[in-house]
Amino acid sequence: MEKPNVLIIGAGGVAQVTAHKVAQHAAEFGAIHMANRTQAKADAIVDSIRDKGTAAGLTITTHALDAMDADKVAALIRETGAKIVINVGTAFINKTVLKGCIAAGAAYIDTAIHEDPDKICETPPWYGNHEWPMRGDVEAAGITAILGAGFDPGVVNAYARLAEDEYFDEITSIDIVDINAGNHGRWFATNFDPEINFREFTGTVYSWQGGAWRENEMFEIGREWDLPVVGKQTAYLAGHDEVHSLSARYPQSDVRFWMGFGAHYINVFTVLKNLGLLSEQPVKTAEGLEVVPLKVVKAVLPDPASLAADYTGKTCIGDLVKGTRDGVEGEVFIYNVADHKEAYTEVGSQGISYTAGVPPVAAAILIARGVWDVKRMVNVEDLPARPFLELLGEMGLPTRVIDANGDRPI
Amino acid sequence: MEKPNVLIIGAGGVAQVTAHKVAQHAAEFGAIHMANRTQAKADAIVDSIRDKGTAAGLTITTHALDAMDADKVAALIRETGAKIVINVGTAFINKTVLKGCIAAGAAYIDTAIHEDPDKICETPPWYGNHEWPMRGDVEAAGITAILGAGFDPGVVNAYARLAEDEYFDEITSIDIVDINAGNHGRWFATNFDPEINFREFTGTVYSWQGGAWRENEMFEIGREWDLPVVGKQTAYLAGHDEVHSLSARYPQSDVRFWMGFGAHYINVFTVLKNLGLLSEQPVKTAEGLEVVPLKVVKAVLPDPASLAADYTGKTCIGDLVKGTRDGVEGEVFIYNVADHKEAYTEVGSQGISYTAGVPPVAAAILIARGVWDVKRMVNVEDLPARPFLELLGEMGLPTRVIDANGDRPI
Repeated sequence: MEKPNVLIIGAGGVAQVTAHKVAQHAAEFGAIHMANRTQAKADAIVDSIRDKGTAAGLTITTHALDAMDADKVAALIRETGAKIVINVGTAFINKTVLKGCIAAGAAYIDTAIHEDPDKICETPPWYGNHEWPMRGDVEAAGITAILGAGFDPGVVNAYARLAEDEYFDEITSIDIVDINAGNHGRWFATNFDPEINFREFTGTVYSWQGGAWRENEMFEIGREWDLPVVGKQTAYLAGHDEVHSLSARYPQSDVRFWMGFGAHYINVFTVLKNLGLLSEQPVKTAEGLEVVPLKVVKAVLPDPASLAADYTGKTCIGDLVKGTRDGVEGEVFIYNVADHKEAYTEVGSQGISYTAGVPPVAAAILIARGVWDVKRMVNVEDLPARPFLELLGEMGLPTRVIDANGDRPI
Repeated sequence: MEKPNVLIIGAGGVAQVTAHKVAQHAAEFGAIHMANRTQAKADAIVDSIRDKGTAAGLTITTHALDAMDADKVAALIRETGAKIVINVGTAFINKTVLKGCIAAGAAYIDTAIHEDPDKICETPPWYGNHEWPMRGDVEAAGITAILGAGFDPGVVNAYARLAEDEYFDEITSIDIVDINAGNHGRWFATNFDPEINFREFTGTVYSWQGGAWRENEMFEIGREWDLPVVGKQTAYLAGHDEVHSLSARYPQSDVRFWMGFGAHYINVFTVLKNLGLLSEQPVKTAEGLEVVPLKVVKAVLPDPASLAADYTGKTCIGDLVKGTRDGVEGEVFIYNVADHKEAYTEVGSQGISYTAGVPPVAAAILIARGVWDVKRMVNVEDLPARPFLELLGEMGLPTRVIDANGDRPI
């Protein structure tokens, strides 16, 4: 069978990891293409791949693309003959890229829910406002669309599915915990696009508990966790994409997402939020200039990609899943530990970008191999987890599990 | 002698106080005019004066004026026949307004040093970079120009002069202390234009000590003060306009300015400064929009004028002056206490605007009466202090003194 051409959209920190990983696994694909609003950023990533020596004899073609225009996306898919599109651009482009894939007949992979620039923390289930209504179009077009195939959402959804497949008859709770115990050495920085980062936390925190959506404020509910490698860490109940899909597959289970924050992050966030500087709504300066405060905050903060060289320490992201098997209650913690320095050495990115950028490549490989080429729209938990997690283990993101039998690889 | 027409430029919180006070003392002046970039703001102030019933039978004429254009300023001075211009607009317009006064032959009063939008905390003496080089032009034009005639700079300069005239043969140190022990009830707000407020504190702190300029960082040096009415308060060595002129008249004396700040202000300031959000230099958003971060911070913060209605508590601003008389060392604290609520009741403004907006009207009255009409450029300490301070006592800003003989009115 002919290897599928692949088109990567985006050229930020996550896209850099994705491009490096596609290059490392070039044998799985046909021609490789990258497109971004600013083509020079894609060119810089291609240069960084050449510097690693991965791409000897490999051609990666870059393109300038306005991905907010579905017709232009479709045209580029046709021009490049891409059969798989990996969307690792901003979450604002999901719908137009997906429409382009439907029109031109290419598989679609993304790593986050679509966002409208003027809305934050939309009402649940958020996927129902954007992607899920396009299920019929995806099926009619006969393409595969895998939503939220980063780490969280993505790998953590597969962890839940692994618990369903291998550990429990019934799942009663899924607590996803995301701890970054790394140190970037800056006074303050976000680990990915500040605009997207802050938008996650400025609105209502939705969790799925007792069969219903529950609303909280950010930093209202904190809990101390004691996790492998990173140790004791405080994480706070937060809204996150995967809660919106896992609650649909596991409606009888509680689904919560916990994000670790230090006191310094919380202080900076609180100051910016209370002043109105995290607002996605435009304000007018005394001189009459209309500007979105959050975009100015993004402009003054360090580019997350620039943190990579100095980043040390580790991340731990996992699912604490509780459930019953043969009527007996039990729990399992399924997790990955990633290292910022190792990520930088391998692909020139920090650990947060690494954990987000590798999984969509694994998904693309599974589509290319036919394992995940399901010809419909799915979230990651709708697909068999083990092939994905085993492939990720080979690709640098091994999965471990802690249960009554100890701490071991899956 | 004919009463001089007066032109007030500006329509912010300070200008509101100035306009109310000019209206209260309309018998000292001829026709009263107000000009502002946005004329509607001046109209609103005139309405607030009518609401107080001060202006029965009084005409205050408003004008739209681009005060950054000296020719337009001169034209308006000629059109209105103004003999005294009170500049209580932003510090960015000082030079063009002064040039307009020189060209059209009107006395000039302001309350702060000129600022260039793209420079902060200029090298000392800051007056030497802008106003002082125009001394010859002022003298040639035969006009009076009184610089820095607000509270600080302004009244505190007169306090130093009073100490020179009535307490000491030689002054050895002048420590100006500015404490606002009021409460506006907002999560965070600045008491005057946030842009000017923050610009004061983002650069080098210059003080005059041991006959030389000394440089510190903001919040580097703090000291606890125990002051009348407001009690024990921590104030920090800060840069301020009056240090730049008092050091010229009292070169043998140390001249320091101390501003009171609570931990909350310092935290917000530190977050904004360290992120780069207080920068006066433009940044470019991801969308390509050029914007000055500080102007966006100003846009999201409460309008200082809006704080007035809910403001409670008092301010204490004074000079601790040390020196010798007949060879004996001594010290005196000369000060004013103002009340936010009383200021609001009288003129619809909070106390900080009140203390800044009343003194330039006293200066204008002293020019009108010929007492301060010196036909040259001066700072407030270059003029006899007692007439000014006594007039201010009648106008709502009484001066008190604490020395070995106790705490009493001057």
